[in-house]
This record gives sequence, C-alpha cells and structure tokens, in this order.
Amino acid sequence: MKKQKLLVAKIGGNVIENKKMLDSFLKDFSKIEGYKILVHGGGKLATQLAEKLEIKTEMIDGRRITSADNLDIVVMTYAGLVNKTIVSGLQNHECNALGLTGADANVIIAKKRPKQFVDYGYVGDVIKVDNKILKIFLEQNIMPVFCAVTHDGNGQLLNTNADTVASEIASAMSIDYEVSLYYCFELKGVLENIQDKESVIEHIDLEKYGQLRDNEIIAEGMLPKLQNCFDALQKKVSKVHIANVEFIKDNTTKHTTLSL
Amino acid sequence: MKKQKLLVAKIGGNVIENKKMLDSFLKDFSKIEGYKILVHGGGKLATQLAEKLEIKTEMIDGRRITSADNLDIVVMTYAGLVNKTIVSGLQNHECNALGLTGADANVIIAKKRPKQFVDYGYVGDVIKVDNKILKIFLEQNIMPVFCAVTHDGNGQLLNTNADTVASEIASAMSIDYEVSLYYCFELKGVLENIQDKESVIEHIDLEKYGQLRDNEIIAEGMLPKLQNCFDALQKKVSKVHIANVEFIKDNTTKHTTLSL
Repeated sequence: MKKQKLLVAKIGGNVIENKKMLDSFLKDFSKIEGYKILVHGGGKLATQLAEKLEIKTEMIDGRRITSADNLDIVVMTYAGLVNKTIVSGLQNHECNALGLTGADANVIIAKKRPKQFVDYGYVGDVIKVDNKILKIFLEQNIMPVFCAVTHDGNGQLLNTNADTVASEIASAMSIDYEVSLYYCFELKGVLENIQDKESVIEHIDLEKYGQLRDNEIIAEGMLPKLQNCFDALQKKVSKVHIANVEFIKDNTTKHTTLSL
Repeated sequence: MKKQKLLVAKIGGNVIENKKMLDSFLKDFSKIEGYKILVHGGGKLATQLAEKLEIKTEMIDGRRITSADNLDIVVMTYAGLVNKTIVSGLQNHECNALGLTGADANVIIAKKRPKQFVDYGYVGDVIKVDNKILKIFLEQNIMPVFCAVTHDGNGQLLNTNADTVASEIASAMSIDYEVSLYYCFELKGVLENIQDKESVIEHIDLEKYGQLRDNEIIAEGMLPKLQNCFDALQKKVSKVHIANVEFIKDNTTKHTTLSL
C-alpha cells in the first residue's frame, strides 16, 4: 500500500522573532493540505531573556551550554512563549495545532549528553520518538508543534537542537509515511558565498557535502544542519530541502535540495 | 449505562513553588487509578519573574491585571516552566501526562473580559471546553495537565483563573463521566478562622455559603473559589472537595466538602 504523505517543517532563525513574518508563515503553513508537523527553534528570545535576568549564556561552537538557570529560560521561552504563540496563531488560521515538548505524552525521550571534552549541561540527544502517538494525533486532525525541549523520562527536561528534533521526528515517521523534511529560515538555502544571498547551492549530495566541508565553504552553524539532513535521508526520509520560509507557499523558489 | 469515574484535581498555592512538596504530590497523584485531569496554578513564579524583569504587576481584588507584558510572563511561567516541570515529573512517575493550554488542540475557547469598571487586560472567561478531544486523550491513556492559559480562537492567548479552568473542565466532562473535582492546596480546607489551620469547615452548602459570605468569615480569595465549586455542582459535577494536597493519597483527612 502506498504510504500517505507527511510534511515535517522546521522554522528557525529570525522568523521566530518577527511577528509579521511568523504570522505570514503560519498562514501559508496552515493552508498546506495533508498531514504535517511543525518544529520551531527559539530564535534569540532565550538569549535576550537571559540577558535581562543577568544569567550568563555560554556558547561553544555555536551551541548553547545549558546550565540549570539556562534550562529554565529555554523552557520558559521555547515551550512557553514561542510554542504557545505559534499554536494560537495556527488556531487563528483554522489549523488544529497541539504544542509539544518531548515530555508531553512521552513523545521524545532523550539522554543527557555525557561530559567529555565539553560539559554541555542540560542538553539531550534524542533516543526515541514515539511515532505511534504522533500518528494518532495526526489521524485526529491534530497538528503537532514541537519546541526543542525533550526529557529523559526520569523527570529531567533537556534542551535539544531543534534541527535534530525535526530530523529525528521525520526519520521516525518514515515508518508509516512518505516524509518530506523542510528546514525553513530567512535565507534561500545553503549559500556558496555568505555575502551573496543569491548564491544558493541548489543541490548537495554526500560527495558535494564532503567537498564543501573540506573547502570550508560552509559556515560552522550550517554543518550540523546538513548532518541532520543526511541523517534523515539515511533513515528513509524521502525529501529534504533547506529553503526560505516562502518555500512553504511556492516551492518553485530557489532552494537547496539534499540527496545521498 | 453507568458513567466511568473521572477525577479533576487542581493544585495551587505554595505547592507549586515547593519542589519537594510538588514532587510528593505528583507521585501520589500518579498512583491514583482511573481517568484523571490535572489543572495547576502558577504560584508566585509569575510575580517573581515580573519583579526581576521590572514589569509592574497590578492586582485588583486578588486578581491580576494582565497587560501584554504580564501575559508574556504568565505564558512563560505557567505554560512553560511550571507546566513542563509537572509533565516531566509525572512522566518520571509513569504517568503519561500531556501539558495543555486552551489553545492546544483548541481545547478551551475563552473570551477577553470586556472592560467595565475595571480593565483586566488579557484575561479570558471560558466559553467552551472541548470534552470530546479530552475524552479521546483519556482513552489513549493520556493524562491532560492544564495551565491556566486559554485563547480566543483568533490568535490571542488569555490568562484565565485556574480554579475556573478546573471548574469548567469538570463541568464539561460531566456529560460523559461521573466527575469528582478536588481543589488541593496547602491548607486543610475552608477555615472558620484563618489563624487556626485546624478550624476546617467540613461541609458547606449553598445556605452555609451565604451565611459565611454575609458574616465575612470567608476571606476574599476564597469567595471566587467557592463560587467555582458551586458552579461545578450546578453543572452536574458529582463531588467537590477543597482539601490539602495530602487528600490525594488519604481522603480520610479532614477537608471541606461542598454540596448544593
């Protein structure tokens, strides 16, 4: 039997903080027919709140070190303000959204990253996504909206990279669905030259990825995103695109397509 | 056919801020067999965060005036930190909790309170609880955990009294279930004398309620709570109790029972 289609979209970057851009995306997203799941980042809101509260935000290689205080801020902004703003915005556009962390309905179990060279604090690596309960939600016409907070099943919330959450959900759902994974942000895709917003690399396969990495063409923040893309493809996700938020309503716009 | 039983419990007061007391409650709560729904307040966390951020919190007659800034704080603390701490705590005790605001799955629609003598700001009065989707969650072995945030369906989140949320949910669920509603906090029930923690009024009916109100025995904060109790009873909720959190594991402890 042919699998039904499912779209897993991740939005991040400046889109989150820009109310007008966010609402425009939510409107477009709500119009897409069929099954879909949204994953969102937190933009700069967590860092801004930490600054206001004079809580130190430490970053190593573009990754946040999550102290207990930082985790509270992440949970407040990602699971609280951002998630519920998105959910109520989608409801306004007749899209029956349900906001989730990994702890809710035990959907995503993660493991606190072990201390090696760096102690990332309360950061979790995904162990398991419950694709069955997500299927039940989808079949009830409920659209899951994930923030990048997971838990370890033992009462500890964990901060998890939003790109990874999207990749893991897309992979887990590929058992039952033909999944497309879109990473949407303010740029048009992966850029050959970060100064030139039009220099989109339209197609990246594993070989090209190796070249881009070796030649240091890809900026540091983009490397883990691409790794998440290839992880998803290797776990049977059908299509992976990195694109501007506009791609949601017009998928003829220039973008980056990934393949193995 | 005899209706199945459902417990709707609301926890509030100092229990929320006291990690040990909260976890002890969650452990006891998770052990209760059968269908159940939890509603929680936010304790003093919202006020504390507002203070740290130097955002003014205005109260009139024990009710928070919810400015746009205050609403953000309410959403961050109630829907974010408190809700997810409770959800992950319950998961730790093998209870499959799902955190919800009224916006999630469109469960509670509210209406912004019209400005009359007082402009309460972004405060919502409940219009409708979707008992059908809650029944679906319960039958999936999912335990809804509500914070006191609702929405108007048009993209606006609203701050709603947690006691009222509990009363409205209990009432709506009474169509399909035999509902018991417990209001749990740090006191043992409604007190005859606020100075004497043992002076529990064990039974309050509508007549007694009138007397207590007329004689100004009940403190201001207790009046709306009692009103919520009687509203629930009038809408066919079977049992309503106001009790200490200990009541969850031992319902022989002294408490207040309400009846019409």
